[in-house]
Amino acid sequence: MDTQPRDLLAFDPLDPVALTQALVRCPSVTPAEGGALGLIAELLAAEGFTVERPVFSAAGTPDVENLYARIGREGPVFVIAGHTDVVPVGDAGAWTRAPFGGTISDGMLHGRGACDMKGGLAAMIAAALRFRRENPDAPGSIAFLITGDEEGPAVNGTVKLLEWAHARGERFDHCLLGEPTNPATMSDMIKIGRRGSLTGRLTVHGKQGHVGYPHLAENPIRGMVRLLAALEATALDKGTAHFDPSNLEVTTLDVGNPATNVVPAQARAVFNIRFNDVWTPETLAAEIERRLREAAGNSVRYEIVFEPTNAVAFLTEPGPFVAMVADAVEAETGRRPALSTTGGTSDARFIKSYCPVVEYGVVGQTMHQVDERVAVADLLTLEAITHRLLTSYFAAAGAD
Amino acid sequence: MDTQPRDLLAFDPLDPVALTQALVRCPSVTPAEGGALGLIAELLAAEGFTVERPVFSAAGTPDVENLYARIGREGPVFVIAGHTDVVPVGDAGAWTRAPFGGTISDGMLHGRGACDMKGGLAAMIAAALRFRRENPDAPGSIAFLITGDEEGPAVNGTVKLLEWAHARGERFDHCLLGEPTNPATMSDMIKIGRRGSLTGRLTVHGKQGHVGYPHLAENPIRGMVRLLAALEATALDKGTAHFDPSNLEVTTLDVGNPATNVVPAQARAVFNIRFNDVWTPETLAAEIERRLREAAGNSVRYEIVFEPTNAVAFLTEPGPFVAMVADAVEAETGRRPALSTTGGTSDARFIKSYCPVVEYGVVGQTMHQVDERVAVADLLTLEAITHRLLTSYFAAAGAD
Repeated sequence: MDTQPRDLLAFDPLDPVALTQALVRCPSVTPAEGGALGLIAELLAAEGFTVERPVFSAAGTPDVENLYARIGREGPVFVIAGHTDVVPVGDAGAWTRAPFGGTISDGMLHGRGACDMKGGLAAMIAAALRFRRENPDAPGSIAFLITGDEEGPAVNGTVKLLEWAHARGERFDHCLLGEPTNPATMSDMIKIGRRGSLTGRLTVHGKQGHVGYPHLAENPIRGMVRLLAALEATALDKGTAHFDPSNLEVTTLDVGNPATNVVPAQARAVFNIRFNDVWTPETLAAEIERRLREAAGNSVRYEIVFEPTNAVAFLTEPGPFVAMVADAVEAETGRRPALSTTGGTSDARFIKSYCPVVEYGVVGQTMHQVDERVAVADLLTLEAITHRLLTSYFAAAGAD
Repeated sequence: MDTQPRDLLAFDPLDPVALTQALVRCPSVTPAEGGALGLIAELLAAEGFTVERPVFSAAGTPDVENLYARIGREGPVFVIAGHTDVVPVGDAGAWTRAPFGGTISDGMLHGRGACDMKGGLAAMIAAALRFRRENPDAPGSIAFLITGDEEGPAVNGTVKLLEWAHARGERFDHCLLGEPTNPATMSDMIKIGRRGSLTGRLTVHGKQGHVGYPHLAENPIRGMVRLLAALEATALDKGTAHFDPSNLEVTTLDVGNPATNVVPAQARAVFNIRFNDVWTPETLAAEIERRLREAAGNSVRYEIVFEPTNAVAFLTEPGPFVAMVADAVEAETGRRPALSTTGGTSDARFIKSYCPVVEYGVVGQTMHQVDERVAVADLLTLEAITHRLLTSYFAAAGAD
């Protein structure tokens, strides 16, 4: 059964630093498992967790390995979620430390995934193991929901793992997702929601011709400028209690006409909107279509196509659970973190359909970059925060 | 001396149709002479013209052959200007007749250059020869100013030929440039001026970043839309007596950002302005710079670079010479042509510094296209119009 006994004996699984090093040394670039899930499976099984390793498939995407583990038979179920896959190394020659080396130097642990998010996951696993060893009879359950497909197409990852677990009767009460939420220090920020994301592709059609004969041509750039100006003229909303205003960015605009004496036939733009809980993707697309229609009138011929999206906006309303996470951060760092909904999307958008989810992890400054790294001290702080949170959570559960 | 006696004997040089065929059969794609200037030189020399064939050179451009011919020693000097070079064939397989065949079918003479402008040049040469044969003692002079570099860089062509002739003491009184000026029929249009052309390259600088963190990025497309909207918000002018309003067209706008979650760093646009005699390139560039400065304020960082231009706007004021051209067209076609300044630029912009210049030629519908062609009837009409014009011009000169 135990296929990697030497690995398990090589370090103390309750040490978040050693565990982060071991995980960084697994080259688990999406969709490769790289040994990372295997290592976690061994660790958790050795501590009494029931571990499952479902593999999910879909046409056109690689098969992906995932992991679900649980200890305890009763509720409440506290879920720790995360991913072991990492983005590619990029320019390997530009790294000052081996990307899969896990080298520690000047208090920083180096390697791809160190902050996104093997470090966060390791600290939470170490904390959970310590908590269970100290409280073998704690009420409720701890579950791990770990995917190998967060950085890739995200098709065979968290979405299917949640469905799979739900179909087996698993029910979750609260979830902590260990993404690196802190901009600069461990007391900066927990995320209690995320904005949604909607991408539109806008094409304006004109009529090609010679610039010297403008009455015989129809310049699509003129129409495009008018439509884009209309999209940006009025704010989409003013923001809500926990969200910034929704924001539209035109990410590219291309014509590709090399001839300075020719009016082009077509102009294409792409825009992306990060939207708050005022909107669903459907209501937002309808508003954009309304603005375009109004600006175009009868004189601009255009097409708008929205990319399918599963990135809806969501919020975990501040309440006892959010307060408990913030309390744990404040107790260990001396400063109360902000409750934020900023930034990109994450797998929390899928988890929120099953239970309240809060995101908190290490400092994300170097994520996806060359020389990605995490402070050793932050790994210890995150272990302590997670341990404190589990202690409070199950104490409250026991008092119910 | 006579190196092509068979060619000269093969057709009647006073027949504009046969001469157009002979010229079309010379593959004179810029900068190749293709035998076209040689043929014209032989013809004109045989009729008593003094013919010179200066070749001009410049670093970075091919050497180009040109032709200057004159008959008569006194003023007034009536100049017929044109070019024998043609644009490339393009997709040769798409032509229904041989591009250098000069085939006549259904009343149309086919081939590259048939309308732009071997047909016009042939008709004018034929008319001049007929006029001189009929009036060997006509007062004044007829000169031909023919380049092989109108469709190319236009560096070693008309500009240098004019300077060369002027340096030799040649003085011109009036010029007819045989470009195809008619949109649909031979009575449509003579051109008495041309708009200028000014090209600007606009770059807007932003700051790259993630769309999820717009406060850390600065989208150059937003600035670009604002600047372009400002350039187009107000008309440059209302047009003048003989000119349409100046017109700005943005010809391309490119960002080239493939990532829908990234705010790009830079946006680039190119625009071209066809401007009338309200402006010089310098005053126009200053107005554009003023508009950009005003729209940018302190919030848009941009650069504007104008390409050097020798395409200034010019007008040959309607008067006796313009009327004489229009009279000849009306007499032969039954309809008075419009006096226009529309369309692209032409070598007339260089000639206008030496003498009043009017442009008139065949129907330009198929110029630069596959299956370029000219109506045989139009060649005959143009020969008759030119003959009538020469007759009136030198009759008036004799009466002075």
